[in-house]
Amino acid sequence: MNLSKKILQIPHSPIRRFYVYSNEAEKNGKKVYQLNIGQPDIKTPEVFFDAIMNFNQDVLDYAPSQGIPVMISAIKNYYARYGMNYGDDQILITSGGSEAIMFTLTAILDPGDEVIVVEPFYSNYATFIIAADGKMVPIASIAEDGYHYAKKEVITKAITPKTKAMIVTSPGNPTGNVLTSAEMRMICDLAIDHNFFIIADEVYREFVYDDREMASMGEFEDADQNVVIIDSVSKRFSACGARVGCIITKNAELYSNILKLCQGRLSAPTLEQVGAAALYGLDPSYFDEVKNEYEHRRDVVCEELAKIPGIVCKKPAGAFYVTAKLPVEDAEDFLIWLLTEFDDEGETVMYAPAEGFYVTPGLGKNEIRIAYVLKEKDLRRAAELIRLGIESYNRR
Amino acid sequence: MNLSKKILQIPHSPIRRFYVYSNEAEKNGKKVYQLNIGQPDIKTPEVFFDAIMNFNQDVLDYAPSQGIPVMISAIKNYYARYGMNYGDDQILITSGGSEAIMFTLTAILDPGDEVIVVEPFYSNYATFIIAADGKMVPIASIAEDGYHYAKKEVITKAITPKTKAMIVTSPGNPTGNVLTSAEMRMICDLAIDHNFFIIADEVYREFVYDDREMASMGEFEDADQNVVIIDSVSKRFSACGARVGCIITKNAELYSNILKLCQGRLSAPTLEQVGAAALYGLDPSYFDEVKNEYEHRRDVVCEELAKIPGIVCKKPAGAFYVTAKLPVEDAEDFLIWLLTEFDDEGETVMYAPAEGFYVTPGLGKNEIRIAYVLKEKDLRRAAELIRLGIESYNRR
Repeated sequence: MNLSKKILQIPHSPIRRFYVYSNEAEKNGKKVYQLNIGQPDIKTPEVFFDAIMNFNQDVLDYAPSQGIPVMISAIKNYYARYGMNYGDDQILITSGGSEAIMFTLTAILDPGDEVIVVEPFYSNYATFIIAADGKMVPIASIAEDGYHYAKKEVITKAITPKTKAMIVTSPGNPTGNVLTSAEMRMICDLAIDHNFFIIADEVYREFVYDDREMASMGEFEDADQNVVIIDSVSKRFSACGARVGCIITKNAELYSNILKLCQGRLSAPTLEQVGAAALYGLDPSYFDEVKNEYEHRRDVVCEELAKIPGIVCKKPAGAFYVTAKLPVEDAEDFLIWLLTEFDDEGETVMYAPAEGFYVTPGLGKNEIRIAYVLKEKDLRRAAELIRLGIESYNRR
Repeated sequence: MNLSKKILQIPHSPIRRFYVYSNEAEKNGKKVYQLNIGQPDIKTPEVFFDAIMNFNQDVLDYAPSQGIPVMISAIKNYYARYGMNYGDDQILITSGGSEAIMFTLTAILDPGDEVIVVEPFYSNYATFIIAADGKMVPIASIAEDGYHYAKKEVITKAITPKTKAMIVTSPGNPTGNVLTSAEMRMICDLAIDHNFFIIADEVYREFVYDDREMASMGEFEDADQNVVIIDSVSKRFSACGARVGCIITKNAELYSNILKLCQGRLSAPTLEQVGAAALYGLDPSYFDEVKNEYEHRRDVVCEELAKIPGIVCKKPAGAFYVTAKLPVEDAEDFLIWLLTEFDDEGETVMYAPAEGFYVTPGLGKNEIRIAYVLKEKDLRRAAELIRLGIESYNRR
């Protein structure tokens, strides 16, 4: 039996094959600093677990397909704090931001429809877009320019009559790029003029540094038929395993059609929604603490990376990633070498090679993504190991 | 912006529009017996909640994309008990059986590929198949014959060069039909001969009555490249809200490709997997108790329904549903009448009209599905209300 053409087109996880080497390295007694995944190390707030402990129904029943009322209400309150007002029938709770994106794409893409993405992009977008029959149209952004892409002429060039949506991730994974309100406004104007959806993946919303404003595509009322916000508790509250996300849109036709998919899969997890709703009850000062911690880590990791001769790395404005261009030819080959040949006092380091974040062949070959989800001391050491590794690798 | 052709084709939940009427009836003080949804009222075993209470990680992190090891291991042990042996790389934990079916269909269906389904079918199959670009090819089964369909000539007629899969639900929702081992063998032979996948939805596996054998498509080793088992803790352990299901297949290519989708959505919920794994540790006698309870309820509901002159209702062999043909012209119209015009001592009843379980136009118009998920006394009263309602409705 043949599998579907779309599934065969979907690439394997770009990081997965390197685990073979890191597992082997660890088995041989090497310590491997993991900079490769966006799994925060910040404690999940107690209120999450407390709410779940207090769940006292005898039967763990299906949640309503659109989400439990207390969760929808928590999200409404959170957005209202930032001047964005949504009704109960404009929010759909999903199993993580991932399901939110999958359902949105399924609802809008016919075979051959185009989705504009910014290279380098969150690699799972490729999985979701291909699975939904769509075609990725990449816009390039480069390390030398701090991966800045939000220029009208650049985006306009990518728009065709087949453009159905643009995925806008701000703050961005993997680059940490953050859009200003003016840049968002410009993208909204393009979406209105050219009649496409903006899939605004804003799961890192709070993680913007250097006193930058926290902007959202939800702020532009004249674009409210175009905008679909993807959100999640994963990064905001360090609760990745909860798998609670949501779709927010004022487009009633889109809402009503995505609801059909939500009803098809019955519900998002009940208990985890109970816990997630409690997270939104935290005082907003919670975000300040977490943000300060990540901002400091960003400064630390950038300071250390700057010591590497020939690296191209502008300080990113948000999220908890740095993408950088290394003075090596092939970052994948260098990573395998780090894991198999290199160590400094029994220690080495793992990052995500960035080639998997591009669809354009040849791009990203010497770029890497670092997730700064370790404590300061470990981050400094991990960056140092990259530096020592490069010296040794380029001397071979 | 246009939505996708596929999403527009997906029907709205066939039960949803009747909630308007039942909510109104309840607001007006009527008691409405709910026979319309498959939400068990059996207590979720304590071990589920205990395991979650004992979760003591500070950070609720992503589970591995294929599932947490303790969950995969629990499923292996459960199947081994029935002589079916699976390896770690033949099981993928999903967010409920729903995600399991969606991912499987996405992995095998190209536009226009056909999936054989048995009418009446679990209506969400339509959502999943259309979303994955497939086309449903129905096989009819009828009330007079107890919805029996597993005849070689009947299934063979539905097979075409475009047949990519057959969904086999045993025990069945909505009919309670249960396949014998010989019938499963026959379907496996057809799948091997005609080169299609069997998507074996066996989430009601334990619910087989009258000392029938509990059979599984996983028992036929020569068909192991064709068979994909869909399973879930929802019904088995009365834990619908956990959203923990799985895909089981010995087809390595299929496994490896579905894994790409699992990696794309990162993980199924972590805590719920911890709880679900504990459920599988229950002594198998747990199933006996639950089965006896449902078997008794089936007898009760069938006994009461048999009192309705003109009803066609054979006693089903499994699951917790009865589908029956009522002596009315239109079961949807009758339901609306029950909710808006009828009451007996302030009480009325709600069921699922079966028309939404058919794709063939005109079929199922006077059929209904009853989920016997209430206690005996309530079940008797609910069935009585249908009988009294019909008498009154047909006298109008």
